[in-house]
Amino acid sequence: MSTHPGITTPAGFRAAAIAAGIKPSGKSDMALVVNDGPKFIAAGVFTQNQVFASPVKITRQHIQDHCLKAVLYNSGNANACNGKQGDDDALSLITQTANNLGIEPADVGACSTGLIGDLLPMNVMRPGVDALSSNLGGNGHLAAEAIMTTDTVAKEFFSAQGEWSLGGMGKGVGMMAPSLATMLVCLTTDADVTAEMAQKALGKACSTTFNTLDVDGSTSTNDTVLLLASGASGYTPSQEEFDAVVYEACWDLMKQMQADAEGVSKRVSITVRGAEDNDSALTAARCIGRDNLCKCAFFGSDPNWGRVLVAVGMAPVVMDPEHINVYFNGEPVCLDSTGTPHAREVDLSGPDISVEVDLATGGPGTATVYTTDLSHAYVDINSAYSS
Amino acid sequence: MSTHPGITTPAGFRAAAIAAGIKPSGKSDMALVVNDGPKFIAAGVFTQNQVFASPVKITRQHIQDHCLKAVLYNSGNANACNGKQGDDDALSLITQTANNLGIEPADVGACSTGLIGDLLPMNVMRPGVDALSSNLGGNGHLAAEAIMTTDTVAKEFFSAQGEWSLGGMGKGVGMMAPSLATMLVCLTTDADVTAEMAQKALGKACSTTFNTLDVDGSTSTNDTVLLLASGASGYTPSQEEFDAVVYEACWDLMKQMQADAEGVSKRVSITVRGAEDNDSALTAARCIGRDNLCKCAFFGSDPNWGRVLVAVGMAPVVMDPEHINVYFNGEPVCLDSTGTPHAREVDLSGPDISVEVDLATGGPGTATVYTTDLSHAYVDINSAYSS
Repeated sequence: MSTHPGITTPAGFRAAAIAAGIKPSGKSDMALVVNDGPKFIAAGVFTQNQVFASPVKITRQHIQDHCLKAVLYNSGNANACNGKQGDDDALSLITQTANNLGIEPADVGACSTGLIGDLLPMNVMRPGVDALSSNLGGNGHLAAEAIMTTDTVAKEFFSAQGEWSLGGMGKGVGMMAPSLATMLVCLTTDADVTAEMAQKALGKACSTTFNTLDVDGSTSTNDTVLLLASGASGYTPSQEEFDAVVYEACWDLMKQMQADAEGVSKRVSITVRGAEDNDSALTAARCIGRDNLCKCAFFGSDPNWGRVLVAVGMAPVVMDPEHINVYFNGEPVCLDSTGTPHAREVDLSGPDISVEVDLATGGPGTATVYTTDLSHAYVDINSAYSS
Repeated sequence: MSTHPGITTPAGFRAAAIAAGIKPSGKSDMALVVNDGPKFIAAGVFTQNQVFASPVKITRQHIQDHCLKAVLYNSGNANACNGKQGDDDALSLITQTANNLGIEPADVGACSTGLIGDLLPMNVMRPGVDALSSNLGGNGHLAAEAIMTTDTVAKEFFSAQGEWSLGGMGKGVGMMAPSLATMLVCLTTDADVTAEMAQKALGKACSTTFNTLDVDGSTSTNDTVLLLASGASGYTPSQEEFDAVVYEACWDLMKQMQADAEGVSKRVSITVRGAEDNDSALTAARCIGRDNLCKCAFFGSDPNWGRVLVAVGMAPVVMDPEHINVYFNGEPVCLDSTGTPHAREVDLSGPDISVEVDLATGGPGTATVYTTDLSHAYVDINSAYSS
C-alpha cells in the first residue's frame, strides 16, 4: 500500500508516472494505470462535445466491451483537432503500451489533456511509454501528479469499505479555469461488480457531481471519467452500497476541483427549487450559473438580485414569473419577484456565496449547480496567448 | 423639421424631453413621443424574458389593438420587479399622460430603462409628465438623449423616401454593457401602412438585426422596439419597400449600439455557414459568441481556433465534427477540424475580428452574430456595486 491511499490502494492495481518531456516545465506528464484483474470491468463517461479528441474517440471504441486492462494518461497536449494523425498517434501509443504489457490494444484506453491542435511529441512519448511499462508499482500519487495541468494540487480519493475499497484520482479545475479545462478522473475498485453495475453507478454519480460543476457551459474535447474494477476482493456489494461509494468519490473529487479553481475569488452554489421537475431546475440553475452579469456581481460581492431574475427568466422552463423568491446566503432578497427592504445590504463579502431560487410552480423539482465568479484573474488566465 | 432629422421628422410626430430628476446626474431622463395621426398604427417587439418589467406588461396590453397615440419614456429606473406597485405606478403615469393629451390611457405605451428593483420616484415623475405634455415639439433629438443610460452618444436614424419617410431613435449598448442592457427603440413613419404591414416589417427586421447583437445571451426585462405610423404622408409603400427601410433603420441603430459598447476592445462578427438551415447556423453562431473562452481569446488577440471548435461542438445542431473549417479575418486557421500550419500567426490585433465557421453539413444554412470580447473593462463595469 502506498503512503497516499488512492488508485493503487484497491487490490489489483498498479500505476507509474514519468516526466517524459511533453511539458516545457519538466514536470511529470505521463502516467499509466494497470488493472491486473482477475476481472477487467470498465465503465466510462465522456465529453458531450461533438468535437472530441482522438483519445476520447479510441477509448470510447475500446470500452464498448466494458473491458479495459490499462489506461495511458498524458498532460501537456490534448491531442484534439489533429485529424487522422491524431488518431494514428494515439493508437500507436496504445499499441506500444499493449505490447509492453502483453495485452491487446483493444483493452487499453488513453486520456490526454493540454493545448488543442498540436501534434503529440511522439519522439519523447515513445520512450515514455516504455519507461512507464517497466516502472509499474504501488504509488498512485505519482500518477495523480502527472495528469495535472493548471491544477495546483493533486486530487485523490480513497474509501475502505471493509471487504472492498475504492480509490480515485482526478485532474481539472472543472470548467473553472477553462483554458485547460479538461476533466480527467480515474476510479479504481477491487469490488467484484458487473459492467452493468459499474456503468449504472458511474453515470448516476457523474450527473449530480461533475455534471453540476459548471462555470461557463464549456465542456472540453477530452473530458473522460473512467471506473475500473478488478474484482480482486472477491466481494460484491449491493448496487446501493456501490452507488453510494462511487458517488462519494465523484463528489469529493468535484469539490477538490472547485476548491482548486484558478482565477476564482468566490465559490457559488446555486440551488433552484419549486421547478416542475429536476431537469427543469437544473436548466434554470445553469442559466444563472452561466450568466456573466450574475458572475460579475458575485465578484463584486454585490447582492444584485435583479440580475438573478433576468438570468432565470431566460430559462426555457416553467416558472411563475411574478412569484419568484431569491435568497442570498439564506437571506430573502426577493419575494414574489419583488425586492425585500434590506436586499441591497446582504453581506456577500465572504468566499462562499449561496443562491437559492424558488420558481414557485408548486412542483418538486430541485437541483444545485456549482459555479464561480467572473474575476479579473479569469480574464487574465484566459486571454493569455494560446494558453 | 428639426436640425437633427429623427423621430419627429416624419409628418405627424411630436416629442419632448426633460430632466425630471430620476437620474442623480441631473441629465435628461424622461421623454414623450406623440403620434398626431391621422392614423395611429403601432407594432411592437418585446423582450423574450419571462421576467419582464411593468411598462412591458402594460404596453403589450395596450398595443394589442395595434393602436398607440403616445409613448412615455424614462431612463434611470427600469420599474422591473416592483410587483403590483410597479404596475400601478406605470399605469398611473400613463393615465396622467393620456389625460393631459386628451386621449385614452389604452392608447399610451411606456418604456423604462435603468436599475431593476427600485420603485419609480413618482414625486418627480408626475411633474415630469406634465412638463412633457406641455412642451411637445419638433426636436426629437432631445428625446433620443433622454433615454440614454450608459450610452455615450444618442442614436438616431432618418431616411427620406420621397413620398414618405422613417425616423428612429434607440438606446442601449445591446447586450454589450449589460449592467443596464435594456434596448429601447422607437421608429416613426408617416407612411400609410396597415398594422399587419408594420408588424411584419418590424418582426422581420428585428430578427436579423437587434436579435443578432448578442454578447452574453442576456435579454433585459425591459427590451422594447416600437414602430409608430401616422399615415400623414398619405402614401402607401409596397411591403418590400417598407420592409427595406425598416430593416435599414434597425440595422443602422444596431450598428450604432455595437459601436457604442462600453467595456469592449474588439468588435467581433461570427458567421456560421454550411449548417442544415439558418436557425441551426444562428444557434451555432450564438454558442461561439457567448463562449467566455473565445471572448477572452479575442480580448488577447489570440487566434486560438481550438476554442472555437470546442464552443461550436457544444451547439445542439448537426455538423460534421471532423470536417469543420474556421477562418479568422479571412485566413484559414482550421481545415477539416485540424489546424493549418500558420494558424497561430494570424494577426487579430485590430479592433475588428471576423470569425467564419463552416459546419460542413452541405446544407445552405447561414447566420451572423455580432459580439464583443470579454475584457477587464467588462468585469469592472459589471462588478461595480449595483450598477
